[in-house]
Amino acid sequence: MELLTKTLQSIENLDKGAMEAARERLDNLIKPPGSLGMLEELAEKMAGITGNTKPVIGGKSVIVMAGDHGVVEEGVSVAPQEITRQMLPNFIRGIAGIGVLARQAGARLVVVDVGVAGGPVETTGVVSRKVRPGTANIAKGPAMTREEAVQAIEVGIEMVTEEINRGATIVAPGDMGIGNTTPSSAILAALGHYTAEEVTGRGTLVNDEVMAKKSKAIAQALVVNKPDPSDGLDVLFKVGGLEIAGLTGVILGAAAGRIPVIIDGFISTAAAMVAAAIEPKCKEYMIAAHLSAEAGHKLMLEHLGLRPMLYMDMRLGEGTGAVLGMHLVDAGCRILNEMATFAEANVMDLEEDKILK
Amino acid sequence: MELLTKTLQSIENLDKGAMEAARERLDNLIKPPGSLGMLEELAEKMAGITGNTKPVIGGKSVIVMAGDHGVVEEGVSVAPQEITRQMLPNFIRGIAGIGVLARQAGARLVVVDVGVAGGPVETTGVVSRKVRPGTANIAKGPAMTREEAVQAIEVGIEMVTEEINRGATIVAPGDMGIGNTTPSSAILAALGHYTAEEVTGRGTLVNDEVMAKKSKAIAQALVVNKPDPSDGLDVLFKVGGLEIAGLTGVILGAAAGRIPVIIDGFISTAAAMVAAAIEPKCKEYMIAAHLSAEAGHKLMLEHLGLRPMLYMDMRLGEGTGAVLGMHLVDAGCRILNEMATFAEANVMDLEEDKILK
Repeated sequence: MELLTKTLQSIENLDKGAMEAARERLDNLIKPPGSLGMLEELAEKMAGITGNTKPVIGGKSVIVMAGDHGVVEEGVSVAPQEITRQMLPNFIRGIAGIGVLARQAGARLVVVDVGVAGGPVETTGVVSRKVRPGTANIAKGPAMTREEAVQAIEVGIEMVTEEINRGATIVAPGDMGIGNTTPSSAILAALGHYTAEEVTGRGTLVNDEVMAKKSKAIAQALVVNKPDPSDGLDVLFKVGGLEIAGLTGVILGAAAGRIPVIIDGFISTAAAMVAAAIEPKCKEYMIAAHLSAEAGHKLMLEHLGLRPMLYMDMRLGEGTGAVLGMHLVDAGCRILNEMATFAEANVMDLEEDKILK
Repeated sequence: MELLTKTLQSIENLDKGAMEAARERLDNLIKPPGSLGMLEELAEKMAGITGNTKPVIGGKSVIVMAGDHGVVEEGVSVAPQEITRQMLPNFIRGIAGIGVLARQAGARLVVVDVGVAGGPVETTGVVSRKVRPGTANIAKGPAMTREEAVQAIEVGIEMVTEEINRGATIVAPGDMGIGNTTPSSAILAALGHYTAEEVTGRGTLVNDEVMAKKSKAIAQALVVNKPDPSDGLDVLFKVGGLEIAGLTGVILGAAAGRIPVIIDGFISTAAAMVAAAIEPKCKEYMIAAHLSAEAGHKLMLEHLGLRPMLYMDMRLGEGTGAVLGMHLVDAGCRILNEMATFAEANVMDLEEDKILK
């Protein structure tokens, strides 16, 4: 708990001065003001996060947290639980979706077993930080204890802090966990004040029969556990998951370490909702990469006040959408660093020359 | 005319066999089928374009065509015409928006004077292929002659063919031309059967007074010239622009050379509409990068049946949105090349194992 408390205390607001200076430069670059749209917003935000009016993206990391979910016994997923464990070697070998896209983005990929069912994952390269071997069934009681949730958050904080110490200037949370759209939906319902029906999406390959079971399990989880929306940790330990808790820690730790966290899809955004419920200031460090094909994702992003950039119907998770967004954040920083102003380039400035009234 | 005719004759449909083989592999990669959304569609399309089931993005080029517009005398633009010419050295120096973003994407930047007002552009590096020094005022008569339109298209074909010969595997058309949202709007109205009011957007910095002048100029251009929507060339020479004609050539030449053309914003998409009106098969080679903040862009993409990936409120042109999209096309190809199948990775295949009925 000490690490979490210390981390929360060190999250500060963005540097308004740096943002204003960046905005002034953006408005003077050789283009109509605002014409690079969200690239300019990214640049300004990066200035605020780093306190540097010419921010640069250097090291990049993706932290994939893996965990299992007791609620799969309710029949909420078509895929067998073993797949969570089976996928970890593929992450390490770089042949899963996130491996390929992280490599393209030049991002380091860190894979953490924070809660995979069964014994330790033996694959060399997987960081072994299992808090417990999967959650309990949230349709029948809390997913874990409050202390376990804190432990898993602290694993995330430690992981991201290690990455920052290695030179990470941006981090993407990624998830692996069969059944994890169910607790993520429950988190959305609890923190966003929605009903189970409103938040239940298809997840991975889910058919109508499984959808009905899933919606019922989410409704039960809310009734049985009564998560308190004014207490992010309460929601997390009652209806969340271990990888979701780990990702919550990654997000809080990134904000404390003053680097941007580029949010992926449904599971990562559930973690972002928990992180924001725990410490609202961390929202300022979030960048939404894409809109997932999972129905409730839009509600999550609205809740957080985030606007996605990519609309590609992706729904794989693992951080795959987030790493695609890294190219865009990098582009925003480059605009600020490499474009010339009207004065530097000797081009008429429309506003300066009062051509615009 | 000979080059254009020859180019049109060599545009073929995509390779359906390669697309089917790519789709089969995509469905067997270690992820739920379809879960990488539009990345998978990009991969499949790239297979169809290249005839290679494992397509690779190698060389990349952006071809920026610059031209001026006689219609500026109607007061349709706030920016003075000289800016078209003033920007060209900045493109070459790499300090304009497209210079920065093309460098990030690893794309070569080719800058062509196909119709800048006044004498030759002296900047070293600018390709001098001026067909005429700006168009005539479309509110009073045709922008150029039909022969000039063909000449400018052929400049575009030659430019993209040169890039393909140098190793380009993907090309982005980019535009520079003060006032060019006006002819682009007229093209949209003519080919899409819209009224001037429906297609008039704010363009760059346009206020209400200028908007009214712009809408009136577009309406006049349509009445005076009576462009024939069944004849793309007719629409182009009557209400188009020289850079738009050049970009039309880039698009047709890319299709003939079997490389994808990643479409940028309002001006490039107007050129894409003309190209598609001349030879509908070229649409199969188009990829829409982003949705521009310019109002009519959505109508253009719908007309072409294209779906954008990036929603970033960009409206700079120059090819800036298109080069951002190159990262995504590359990502799609990498998925197909670098992800493992269930069989290769030893993971249970949900469909193979009949877990899904």
